[in-house]
Amino acid sequence: MAMPKGPQAFPRTEYLRRLSAVKSEMQQRGIDVLIVTTPQNIGYLTGYTAKSAYVPQGLIVSLKDEEPTFILRRMDAPAAIYQTFLAHNQIIGYPEGLIGNLERDGFDTIVDFLLDSGVAKRRIGLEEKFLTPQTIAKFKSRLPEASIDDFSNGVSWIRLVKSDLEIAVMREAAAITDAGMRRAQEVVRPGVREADAAAEIISTLARGANGKVGTDVHHSFFLCASPRTGTCHIKWTEETFRESSQVNLEFTGVRHGYVSPLMRTLSIGKPSDRLRRIHEGEVAALEAALLTVKPGATCADVATAFKNTLRKHGFEKESRCGYAIGLDWLEPTASLKEDDRTILQPNMTFHLMLGNWIDEDFGYSLSETIRVTKGGVETFSKLPRELFEIHP
Amino acid sequence: MAMPKGPQAFPRTEYLRRLSAVKSEMQQRGIDVLIVTTPQNIGYLTGYTAKSAYVPQGLIVSLKDEEPTFILRRMDAPAAIYQTFLAHNQIIGYPEGLIGNLERDGFDTIVDFLLDSGVAKRRIGLEEKFLTPQTIAKFKSRLPEASIDDFSNGVSWIRLVKSDLEIAVMREAAAITDAGMRRAQEVVRPGVREADAAAEIISTLARGANGKVGTDVHHSFFLCASPRTGTCHIKWTEETFRESSQVNLEFTGVRHGYVSPLMRTLSIGKPSDRLRRIHEGEVAALEAALLTVKPGATCADVATAFKNTLRKHGFEKESRCGYAIGLDWLEPTASLKEDDRTILQPNMTFHLMLGNWIDEDFGYSLSETIRVTKGGVETFSKLPRELFEIHP
Repeated sequence: MAMPKGPQAFPRTEYLRRLSAVKSEMQQRGIDVLIVTTPQNIGYLTGYTAKSAYVPQGLIVSLKDEEPTFILRRMDAPAAIYQTFLAHNQIIGYPEGLIGNLERDGFDTIVDFLLDSGVAKRRIGLEEKFLTPQTIAKFKSRLPEASIDDFSNGVSWIRLVKSDLEIAVMREAAAITDAGMRRAQEVVRPGVREADAAAEIISTLARGANGKVGTDVHHSFFLCASPRTGTCHIKWTEETFRESSQVNLEFTGVRHGYVSPLMRTLSIGKPSDRLRRIHEGEVAALEAALLTVKPGATCADVATAFKNTLRKHGFEKESRCGYAIGLDWLEPTASLKEDDRTILQPNMTFHLMLGNWIDEDFGYSLSETIRVTKGGVETFSKLPRELFEIHP
Repeated sequence: MAMPKGPQAFPRTEYLRRLSAVKSEMQQRGIDVLIVTTPQNIGYLTGYTAKSAYVPQGLIVSLKDEEPTFILRRMDAPAAIYQTFLAHNQIIGYPEGLIGNLERDGFDTIVDFLLDSGVAKRRIGLEEKFLTPQTIAKFKSRLPEASIDDFSNGVSWIRLVKSDLEIAVMREAAAITDAGMRRAQEVVRPGVREADAAAEIISTLARGANGKVGTDVHHSFFLCASPRTGTCHIKWTEETFRESSQVNLEFTGVRHGYVSPLMRTLSIGKPSDRLRRIHEGEVAALEAALLTVKPGATCADVATAFKNTLRKHGFEKESRCGYAIGLDWLEPTASLKEDDRTILQPNMTFHLMLGNWIDEDFGYSLSETIRVTKGGVETFSKLPRELFEIHP
């Protein structure tokens, strides 16, 4: 029996539009065939969100074919049939004998496919950042007459400017994030175990909001409570929340792989003067940054506005104040930092990330996920930029 | 103020034992200094479980130093202080200016440290599988007089045999997995949204079992319901469970990074004959495999026993029937397949993974996480090997 096609997150025309942008970039670089291996880029071009990138797989985009060919492990092919817009015969499963095999692996199947397609002497693009040196060497030695170019961030730069359809999905993700953050305000109480609060928040992120389920729970979920507010990437601990303490939160809802993260700080009891001061400075700096966002401004302009305002309040933030975001959190392209001259365009989206880890044992969390609009900026979250006080 | 040390998952002596095994392997290969970059290996040698590996970081293990040096992004250093057994001054945070910087990154800080340590002409081991070609080239060009060797799976092979302390933690993870699987039997019902069931199961995995919280929710969580039982790596969909359908589950509890996954198949209503037949064959084959597990047998013996018994029941399983497991799911070493001659030793642990994706639209899930004992085998889960029937 054949696997049916599942409901698609985007229409076929949307994927063809994305592919067309990638092909333009390939043409500009003189590349005939591109092997996409970065999981987010495969998802972007096909709709695939299954978690199989721990074994070899690749999407082969050729200038001469409308649809790409997806070569992946045979046991993952049914998920590709179900999830992607690709025709059934564009999906090729390689045999299980290539798993845990030191001689040959799934990348050999991809090379075989290239050889059979008659492109052995053409220019082939690889995403080298997502390949091991051994795999790159395999492509070079098995395709000695091809010219092999690195195309690592080529697709990611195209992802930077979203379509209106992608923006709609990010708004759905944001509504889920907001639901999770509201749940956090309900369940964080002194004496409650951090893990139990995390369980409630995460289950809210899975259930979703406004009738749209969370399609995933992102592995980046951070709950850093006193005395760990100086940390930023720990999940939670075995401890219980304390009276007169602080909780820094960072997480996102997920829709079809798209995210819209949010950071907020909770104060259990009255916030300390130090916490209130940093909060006031950060909110003012965030608002200054938002005022600079518009087409034609640069990433540097946003970062400079943020940092200058924060400095007036007596604080510094060492790390960048944001990065491009969309499909599966961090996009490895534009950064909101003082030396990034990327020019903002409508429908670029960023996580304006103002987390500030000031001292080993003191940090503060605040962020907005934003979209550059024609006239300025849209923030996806509907939550206030408050220090959420918990008074049990 | 200084960050305090948090409660440690393992005593210092356990980490020193692991380091000592790594140093023996280094000595055998003539390597003076090893740069550990695989996140699981860093965790194994230090206790670090924060999620910061998306930026450069490395643990420097030197034959001449008892404790390694951990170089990571400055904002992540407090988490390293809190979570690891390392002395405060063995943890070095590199500045934020190296993030999103095309000229220099955190690996330059590691190279600087090596140069300052006077090892520029020594033999240095890298885990090349976890580095980009650009980073490997950087090490080679900035350390032209060093001899640089690939040590990719060196630490992973040491991880294969667990200590009794690790086994105890895996048993805690297994109890959490069992709690999640029992919750699944309670919440999977016709008309329930898959996402709502996932929310309940995942929150159970975070809450934990027997007073031990889940310290993480692993991103590998798979719920493949009809008509998607032929897929294996999709999380869940926006649909509701149907009458007379099937749900394949695979997930794990997590304790301090350690996992003990389990797969089971649920039948909503009376199972089809096809499902019952594959279940009976797989259980018989699983039991045959378990009977072969003992020190001195090989991975191939286990796989052969499984496959021969399954064949007698009229089925084939194309994929391997398991792999080494422990810290963060799949360990890239021993596989339970017919050509893997790895000899079983006490306290090796495997995910005996009998998922069988027979057809595009039909598959079946069953597994046990097991330990090789002195006399045979221990299965960590306490759940029966049943096809769980849901009769609402």
